[in-house]
Order: sequence, then C-alpha cells, then structure tokens
Amino acid sequence: MGETLRFVTSNRGKYEEFRRMGSRFGVEIEMVEASYREIQSDDLEEIALDSCRQLAGSLGEGFFLEDAGLFVDSLGGFPGPFSSYVYSTIGNDGILRLLEGEEDRRARFVSVICHFDGEYHLFRGEVVGKISTEKRGEAGFGFDPIFVPEGHTRTFAEMGPKKDLISHRARSSEIFFRTLAEGSARCCSG
Amino acid sequence: MGETLRFVTSNRGKYEEFRRMGSRFGVEIEMVEASYREIQSDDLEEIALDSCRQLAGSLGEGFFLEDAGLFVDSLGGFPGPFSSYVYSTIGNDGILRLLEGEEDRRARFVSVICHFDGEYHLFRGEVVGKISTEKRGEAGFGFDPIFVPEGHTRTFAEMGPKKDLISHRARSSEIFFRTLAEGSARCCSG
Repeated sequence: MGETLRFVTSNRGKYEEFRRMGSRFGVEIEMVEASYREIQSDDLEEIALDSCRQLAGSLGEGFFLEDAGLFVDSLGGFPGPFSSYVYSTIGNDGILRLLEGEEDRRARFVSVICHFDGEYHLFRGEVVGKISTEKRGEAGFGFDPIFVPEGHTRTFAEMGPKKDLISHRARSSEIFFRTLAEGSARCCSG
Repeated sequence: MGETLRFVTSNRGKYEEFRRMGSRFGVEIEMVEASYREIQSDDLEEIALDSCRQLAGSLGEGFFLEDAGLFVDSLGGFPGPFSSYVYSTIGNDGILRLLEGEEDRRARFVSVICHFDGEYHLFRGEVVGKISTEKRGEAGFGFDPIFVPEGHTRTFAEMGPKKDLISHRARSSEIFFRTLAEGSARCCSG
C-alpha cells in the first residue's frame, strides 16, 4: 500500500505501538498533535467519534485517533474512559489499593479507533484479563504493569513488543488496517 | 426580586440546595433537565463554560448550571472534575480506601456556577476541609458523608441544612445571587 496515515495523539507510547503494528500491514503512521476536547461519557465509541468530528474540519480526510480504557469489573468499570486522568492522579498504586483483599480481579482493556476518510469509521478491540497484586515490568505505559491478559502470567509491561500481538490495541488496529487494505485493494483493482 | 431562574441539572440534591439558598435572596429556582456533554478537563471553569455554551442556543437567556468537584490533596486532586463518575463507580468507600493510613487528608470542595443572561458569568466557591476516616451522616449527597469542613467535626452529611451556610455551593451561590440582586437593582432604579 505504501500509505501514510496521520495519527492524532500526544501519547508517544501509543504512537510507537501503532507504528509497529502498522508496519506489519505496510502502513506508515505519522504522529500529529492537534488539540481537541474529549467529552465525559462512559461510552468510548461516543468519545472517539465526538473527538474525530471536532478535528475533521481542521485536519480534513485521512487521519485517525484512538480512545482506550481499563475497565475493572469489581469497581463498576472504573477507571474506564477516565483512565488517563485516573492514571495521572492515583496511578497503578491507586488501582491496586482499591482492589486490596478483593478476590474478583477481572478487568478488560478496550481500544476504540475512529478513522475519518470523509466518513467516520469506528473499530473496537478488547482484551480480558485480571489486575495483578503488584506492579511488574517496565515496558509499555499507563496501567500495563498491573494488567495480566487471560491465558498469560506476565503483565503487559513484562511482555514488551509481545503485547502488540494480543492487546486491545492490536485487535482494534488489525481490523482497522485490514479494512484499509481491502478498501485500497478494491479501489485499485478496477 | 421575585425572579424565577432556570437551573439545568439532573441532580435533585443539588436542586434542593440551590432552591433553599435562592429563597434567602428572594430568587425562585426552577429545575430544568436538558442534555449536554461535559468535556474532560481538570478546570471546572472551563467545563462549566463549555456546558453553558452548548445550552445557550436552545435555552436562551436566563439559566444557570453548576459543576462541582472534590479535590483531595494527597491524591493529586483526584477525583476533581470527575467526581460524579468516580462517586458512581468506587464511591465513598473507594476514596476512604485510597486514603487508608494516609496522614494528609486535606481536601476541598469546589463549586463553579455558569450563568447565561446573554453573556456568560462564572462564580466560584470553595471550602477546605479533610476526608474523615469513615462515612458519617445521611443528609446531602455524593461525597458529603466523608467531608469534614475546616473548623468543624461533623461531616457535611451530618450537618443537614447547616451545610447550606458554609459549603462551596453556599459560597458560589451567594456571590451569584448577590450579583443578580445588584444587577437587578441597577436595572430598575433608573
């Protein structure tokens, strides 16, 4: 394909993940910082779509953004769409503290991509798992040191690039990049 | 004055407080439910102003709304502008748990009113205090059972209507209602 896609984010960790995943599909990702206001909602799709709409006028076609969150079952889905704010205030230690003595440690990471190419397209990826009892690992960012995906014993932060194969972001971006590739194949085969 | 002001909220507890406080200034408050989207920001003024702007077109002149939050010092200001979401997920128990063993229990409640009368006017009220070590009291709503204002021993939820004299909301609304009364006096004296 050889396409370059603009990814709107101020989070370099996210950008690096998308860049690595895109390269497997022949998509080059360019990091673009642009300012927009996320709305408060418990629905990631709604937040991502609203953000995408805010930027469509100024950026034009051919960009995407992503909203992601960690949803902890026994905390009613907290921190959910507010993961970034919660991470920057109470952090991993805060989540561990809220779960002290809690047996139900189930959680899931969700990623929603919004791509604007004249129309808005949403792609969702999820990974279920559980919250560890202590922080482990140095890779990744955010809540990665306390999230252990189902079927694994290591946290996302202990996995390094292997996280790219199984994460919520791997799943949303795989659907996204495959859809792009198919569209591009359709467009150019006729 | 005999004026009726529309207050946009879906929180009956807040409405009751404003109604009681308004009556001391001769202002009648009508509760109006109207849908708007709060933005994510750590600045209550910015959130309130944005919400007010969203509603000005449909509601016209003569309404106000309020955004409030509990800011806990040792938690980096958490839950702050996301107090309503945090209350509905981890609740008072969550905040108490995050502060277990913590000596620094300082916190403040902040209320920001945005009033639209053709122009936008912002009014801020704050009350400092500390987070109690357990929930106490049945009155009020939200984080009232764990907040003890400075110079007092009872929580807001133990105070009942006495909260109306010292709360963040008492302070923001007093400035608001006094400003209204002065404007109204100016307008009608000439």
